[in-house]
Amino acid sequence: MDDSTPLKVALLGCGVVGSQVARLLIEQADDLRARIGRPLELVGIAVRRLSLERPGIDRSLLTDDPMALVTRSDVDLVIELLGGIEPARSLLLAAIGAGSSVITANKALLASDGATIYEAAEAAGVDVYYEAAVAGAIPIIRPLRESLVGDEVTAVMGIVNGTTNFILDKMHTDGADFASALAEAQALGFAEADPTADVEGYDAASKAAILASLAFHSRVRLGDVAREGITGVTSDDIAAATEMGCVVKLLARCALSEDGTIEVGVHPTMVPLAHPLAAIPGAYNAVFIESRHAGRLMFMGPGAGGSPTASAVLGDLVTAARNRVRGARGPGESTYSARSITPAGRVSSRYYVSMFVHDEPGVLAKVAGCFADQNVSLQEVRQESKGDRARLGVMTHRATAAQIEAALAGLATMTEVEPGVSVMRVEGA
Amino acid sequence: MDDSTPLKVALLGCGVVGSQVARLLIEQADDLRARIGRPLELVGIAVRRLSLERPGIDRSLLTDDPMALVTRSDVDLVIELLGGIEPARSLLLAAIGAGSSVITANKALLASDGATIYEAAEAAGVDVYYEAAVAGAIPIIRPLRESLVGDEVTAVMGIVNGTTNFILDKMHTDGADFASALAEAQALGFAEADPTADVEGYDAASKAAILASLAFHSRVRLGDVAREGITGVTSDDIAAATEMGCVVKLLARCALSEDGTIEVGVHPTMVPLAHPLAAIPGAYNAVFIESRHAGRLMFMGPGAGGSPTASAVLGDLVTAARNRVRGARGPGESTYSARSITPAGRVSSRYYVSMFVHDEPGVLAKVAGCFADQNVSLQEVRQESKGDRARLGVMTHRATAAQIEAALAGLATMTEVEPGVSVMRVEGA
Repeated sequence: MDDSTPLKVALLGCGVVGSQVARLLIEQADDLRARIGRPLELVGIAVRRLSLERPGIDRSLLTDDPMALVTRSDVDLVIELLGGIEPARSLLLAAIGAGSSVITANKALLASDGATIYEAAEAAGVDVYYEAAVAGAIPIIRPLRESLVGDEVTAVMGIVNGTTNFILDKMHTDGADFASALAEAQALGFAEADPTADVEGYDAASKAAILASLAFHSRVRLGDVAREGITGVTSDDIAAATEMGCVVKLLARCALSEDGTIEVGVHPTMVPLAHPLAAIPGAYNAVFIESRHAGRLMFMGPGAGGSPTASAVLGDLVTAARNRVRGARGPGESTYSARSITPAGRVSSRYYVSMFVHDEPGVLAKVAGCFADQNVSLQEVRQESKGDRARLGVMTHRATAAQIEAALAGLATMTEVEPGVSVMRVEGA
Repeated sequence: MDDSTPLKVALLGCGVVGSQVARLLIEQADDLRARIGRPLELVGIAVRRLSLERPGIDRSLLTDDPMALVTRSDVDLVIELLGGIEPARSLLLAAIGAGSSVITANKALLASDGATIYEAAEAAGVDVYYEAAVAGAIPIIRPLRESLVGDEVTAVMGIVNGTTNFILDKMHTDGADFASALAEAQALGFAEADPTADVEGYDAASKAAILASLAFHSRVRLGDVAREGITGVTSDDIAAATEMGCVVKLLARCALSEDGTIEVGVHPTMVPLAHPLAAIPGAYNAVFIESRHAGRLMFMGPGAGGSPTASAVLGDLVTAARNRVRGARGPGESTYSARSITPAGRVSSRYYVSMFVHDEPGVLAKVAGCFADQNVSLQEVRQESKGDRARLGVMTHRATAAQIEAALAGLATMTEVEPGVSVMRVEGA
C-alpha cells in the first residue's frame, strides 16, 4: 500500500454536519492528505431521502442502503452522524465488524450503550473516536482520555447544552420568563420545535454520562445521571441568583464522592459571577475540570453548529486515519476503576432555598432550626420585608440532597412558611 | 513480554517538577498500571548533586551520570526536565538513539532546535511528547496536534507566562509600577531572582514558536519570533488601557497572514475587557484559538508549578507508554506546509498610540494627518486637556507595524507633540 492509495471513508448522514464534512473532505483534501500521509476518498454517503436537493454534494455518492455501504470490504473509516440508538448502533457494529475504524457524534448511543460499541472495537482492533459527541468543537474527550490520564480528576462541571445556556442567558439579561425565552430561542433557530431533549436536560445528561465515564475510568450510563431540566426555572429564581451575585446555568456535573463513588447529575445551578463558568455566553459551551495535580482547567468554545461539529469530526478522522497508516491504535475504553454511582440522596452540593414567610418574630429562628435539625449549616441568610410577609433566602454550606429534602419537609410543616419553596443547587465556590 | 513486565522509566532532573513526578510514579502506580496495561518502574534519576537532601526520593535511584542512564538498553521511556539547550539535547538524542520514547518540558530546546529532536525520533520510530513545555497543565499541544488537525487554525493568542501575567495584574489592580510589581512577584516566589527570561518575553517567545509550528504545520524557531517584554510598560500605559476598557497582557500571538506567511510575536498588548483572555487572573495561563471551522476556543488553567507540570508530564508518559504496549506511535512533527515568517514590518495589529501635545487649535488635525498619510485609519481619538497641554489617545484600525512606524516618524517631526509617544498593540476585537 503506497502513499497514494486512498483511505476510503463512508459517511452516514448528510444533514447540517454531514454535508459540511463532505464538503471539507473535498475542499481540504490536500491538507488532509499531507497531515495523514495518504489521501482520503469519500466513497459513499448514506441518506434517508435520495431525492432531496443537496448543494455541493456529488449525487453519485448517495445511497439509501447504509448497511451495504458500511460493510463494503474496501471501506477503512466510517463516520456516523445519524444520531439516535437505531439504526446507528447496528450500523456502527457492522462497520466495526467489517474492520473499519469509526467516528461518531452520537452522544445518545454512547451514553446508553457505549460499552457494546467499545467492546466490539476492542475485539476488532479498530478505533472509536467521538470528540464531537460532547461540547461540539471543544477538544474535551481527547484531553480527558489522554492529557489528564496521568492525573486524578476529581470533578467536571460543564455547560454542555447551548440551547439551555441561551435561554437562561436571555432570562438573565432581558428578565424574560422561561416560555418567552424559549420562544425567542426557537425563532432564532437555537432551539428545536420540540425542545424536550434540550430543556429537560436529556442531551446534557448524555454528555454527563460520557464525561463521567472518561473522568473516572468507569462505565456511567445515561440512566445513572440524575436529571433536572430548566422548565421549572422562574424569573424569581433568576432574580434571586442575581441578588446573590450568581447566574443560573444548566450544569452537567460529575465528581468523585468522598466514599469513592461517582456523583453525576444535570441540574439548574447557581454559579457565582467570579467563577469562569459564569461568563460563558449564549450558545457557547464550556467544561471546567478540577484535578488533583493539574488543578483547575477550563475549556470553552462553540458547542454546536455544522462547522464546529464538522471540525471535531475531521480531527477524529485524521487521527483515526493516521493510526491506520501507522498500523497503530488510539486509546480504548478505560473502565478499570469500576466505580459505582452515588445514590441521589447522598450527592452533596451547596443549596439556595428561597421562600415567603409571615413577617413575624421567631420565624427566622424556626426556619434556621429546620436546617439545623438536619445538620445543615447556613452560610448566609437574607430577609426582605414585603408588607406582612417577607422573602427569605438561605444559602447553605455543602449538604446532601437527602439532608436538604428533610429540611424542606420540616419547612413544609411550618404554617408561617408559604407553599412554593424554591430550591437550587450552588456550585463553584 | 507479559502484562506484568514493567516499562522502565528514566528521569533527568529532580527539581520541583521532577521530584513530584518521581513521587507520583510511586503514589499512583496502581492507577498508572491499569491505564497503561503494564506497570511503570522508575529505574534512575539523574541529578547534578547527589548529596542534596531529597525528601521522599529513594536515594538508590540517584545518579550523576545522565548519559549512562539514558543509554541503558533496558530503559523504555526518558523524561527530560533539565531545561536549557545542553546537555538536554545530547541526552535526548542519546535516549532516542537507544530506542526510548521521550517526554520533555524543555521549551527552550524545542523552540531553538526541535527539528533535530523530532527528526531523530522519526528515524528511530519513537515518540516525542511535550505537553508540559507550553502552558503547564493546560492541554494545548494535544488539541493542536490532534483535535484541530482536521481544521485550519487561523490565529493563536496565549497568555503563556504566569510571572508577567501576575506583574501586569498587580499593576492594574494596585496601580503599582513595574519595578514594585516585580519586587512583589519575587517576594511571593512568582518571579525568579533573575527575571530576564520572563519579563523580557524570552519564555513566552519559545512557547510562541512551538504553538506556531503546531498551528501552521511549519517549523517556527525562537529566532523567528518578534519579542518585546513588559519592562517598558508604564503606569500610564496601564491607566490608558483602563480608560479604553482594556487590560494589558503579555500576549504570545501567531496568525496566518493574508499572504499565507506566519505572523509570530510576543508583545504587551491591550485586550478589551469583554474578551475572554482579559479575565485570566494572576499566575494562570490561557490560550485562545481561532480556527476556520471550530471558531473560537479557549483553554485556561495553571501555567506553572510542580504539580500542574507533573500532571502534564505524566499524561504524556501514560500516552507514550500505552503506545509502547500497543506497538504504536503518536503523531510526529508536521511541517508539510513549510510557511515562511511574515517580516516584522508587515505584521498587522490594531494600535493604541498615546502622546502629550500642545493644547492648541489644529494639533489634532495634524496628528490625524500623520496617520492618514500612511493610510492608517482611526477608530477612536480621545483628547483630555491638562492645562496648556493635552493627552491624546488614538486607537487605530488594523495597520502594519511599518505603517505605524512611519506614522510615528511623522509625529516625531511635529513640534506640538512632546517626545515620549507610547505605542501598544491591541488585539481581540
